[in-house]
Amino acid sequence: MSDELPGFADVEAAAARLAGKAIVTPLLEHPELNERLGGRLLIKPETLQRTGSFKFRGAYNRIASIPGEQRGRGVLAYSSGNHAQGVAAAALLLGLPATIVMPADAPAVKVANTRAYGATVVFYDRYGDDREAIAAELLEKTGATLVRPYDDPLIVAGQGTCGLELVRQARGLEATLDAVLVCCGGGGLTAGTALSVKALSPETEVYSVEPESFDDTARSLAGGARVGNRPEARSICDALLSPTPGVLTFALNRRLVSGGLSVSDAEVERAMAFAFNRLKLVVEPGGAVALAAVLSGKIATAGRTTAIVLSGGNVDPATLQGALDRNP
Amino acid sequence: MSDELPGFADVEAAAARLAGKAIVTPLLEHPELNERLGGRLLIKPETLQRTGSFKFRGAYNRIASIPGEQRGRGVLAYSSGNHAQGVAAAALLLGLPATIVMPADAPAVKVANTRAYGATVVFYDRYGDDREAIAAELLEKTGATLVRPYDDPLIVAGQGTCGLELVRQARGLEATLDAVLVCCGGGGLTAGTALSVKALSPETEVYSVEPESFDDTARSLAGGARVGNRPEARSICDALLSPTPGVLTFALNRRLVSGGLSVSDAEVERAMAFAFNRLKLVVEPGGAVALAAVLSGKIATAGRTTAIVLSGGNVDPATLQGALDRNP
Repeated sequence: MSDELPGFADVEAAAARLAGKAIVTPLLEHPELNERLGGRLLIKPETLQRTGSFKFRGAYNRIASIPGEQRGRGVLAYSSGNHAQGVAAAALLLGLPATIVMPADAPAVKVANTRAYGATVVFYDRYGDDREAIAAELLEKTGATLVRPYDDPLIVAGQGTCGLELVRQARGLEATLDAVLVCCGGGGLTAGTALSVKALSPETEVYSVEPESFDDTARSLAGGARVGNRPEARSICDALLSPTPGVLTFALNRRLVSGGLSVSDAEVERAMAFAFNRLKLVVEPGGAVALAAVLSGKIATAGRTTAIVLSGGNVDPATLQGALDRNP
Repeated sequence: MSDELPGFADVEAAAARLAGKAIVTPLLEHPELNERLGGRLLIKPETLQRTGSFKFRGAYNRIASIPGEQRGRGVLAYSSGNHAQGVAAAALLLGLPATIVMPADAPAVKVANTRAYGATVVFYDRYGDDREAIAAELLEKTGATLVRPYDDPLIVAGQGTCGLELVRQARGLEATLDAVLVCCGGGGLTAGTALSVKALSPETEVYSVEPESFDDTARSLAGGARVGNRPEARSICDALLSPTPGVLTFALNRRLVSGGLSVSDAEVERAMAFAFNRLKLVVEPGGAVALAAVLSGKIATAGRTTAIVLSGGNVDPATLQGALDRNP
């Protein structure tokens, strides 16, 4: 793995690699939501992406770049579930075996889907075990290539194709983007999207959005150095529970991102219910944080054009039902 | 109301009227679903339309055409819910008061949304009362304009804009459509879509899809004359419980539609669960019949390009939960 920071050219190369493989998700606009906000809101539903989240983009870009002689040993990833599915689906398409190290409390739908793509799943305890140590041991045994969830230039570049499409589609709608809000765990989607947005529309501000108890990127951006979350922190946003910002992703985000927003689990559930009832989209907790930030007024939207990414839709029905029950 | 059959020029006129008012819903394609079917499936999610169904298209086209001097008396409609919301939302946008006669067992979400658009709701018993008689009495009292659910050339032309978009978007994807499957109640969406498809792509076959106990259009097409459903018929597809094909819609459909398919409630629930789990789309029972027809093999899709409309997404959470519970 190269540790060089990726640039916009890497995103363009990823877009070429992903053409015909990843879904070009639409950019949606909902007049009634615009009226409510007094501005324009453009919605990029990566929920409609292959595997139900943006993660397929980075995973495919990374795995497609593995040299021929290493392919036979397969790939290995650790992931709460969306990266797992992205890696498993990309490996299946490219004909590589995949092993995924997943937390034992990952949503059942994510575990089942990962297995459905033919991957071998190895469980660990999210709050007790060291997933990187478990992965290292497996890597040594198998000689597989590690596909990191975010701290990899090819992963960041792949996720950046989401932002690339977003900016081009916004132009097609004759929209001038004031701000783009991106769901943020380790910061790969944020960094990739920021690369695209800042290259194509430098005036547009990019914001990361996190669960309020996992606001490491927001605090790191504010303080100018990577800080972590409290070990006892919990959130329903299983896709966004990274301990700290990535090294590579933070190096990009501190340069490109205007600031970090955060939302409570209750605000996330309200956004999930709104997406279900009004947008008719299935959105998982971690995929709803940017929408939650907009709906709960964490950023000014009146008289402006704001874009958000709905980053994933892999939610267990019971979790969504709970959100609907609490937001009738 | 004119009883002349609408033509494709009327659809084009409707498209001009709806520009900037209705949402141009995307045309989606899901590689894994294609692989499963061995062909191409293009999905037009009218679930993402204003009011959560295609009904806004026809309602807006109809209400926008009411002469100025009649507007003050408002509009009246009878509807199980989706037409109600379409009429209420269009009337609100155009500044007309709206009264909606709805069955007492309409999904709560549809009643609540109709009221949220400012309409007055009057209930009737779906299996006991004559909704047309109730509507006639209210019309006499108020002088309002009746906005029929399907048997009106302007309604059919408005719904036809869905098909117009579909054909143009399919061309953008370099797809040659072999068949288009449309959810069918009274036949307005089917007739409008067929007008567009047959004008722009005459080789493409159009099929109506109905619940199997409300397959009046299928039997009418097969026999060449309008027949009705048994009074004791029931289905979870509340949006598609029309007693017979419309006069005007059947006159078009018998000329333009290749045949009628039907699906069981169990097949509909399986399709709703598939849409939730794999497509990440919220689809109501009546909106899922075309998808159900494809998934349950009611039409050949291997080696062909098929398009379906997901006509609505206004489902109560408990109804969707039931479908998910029965299709784990």
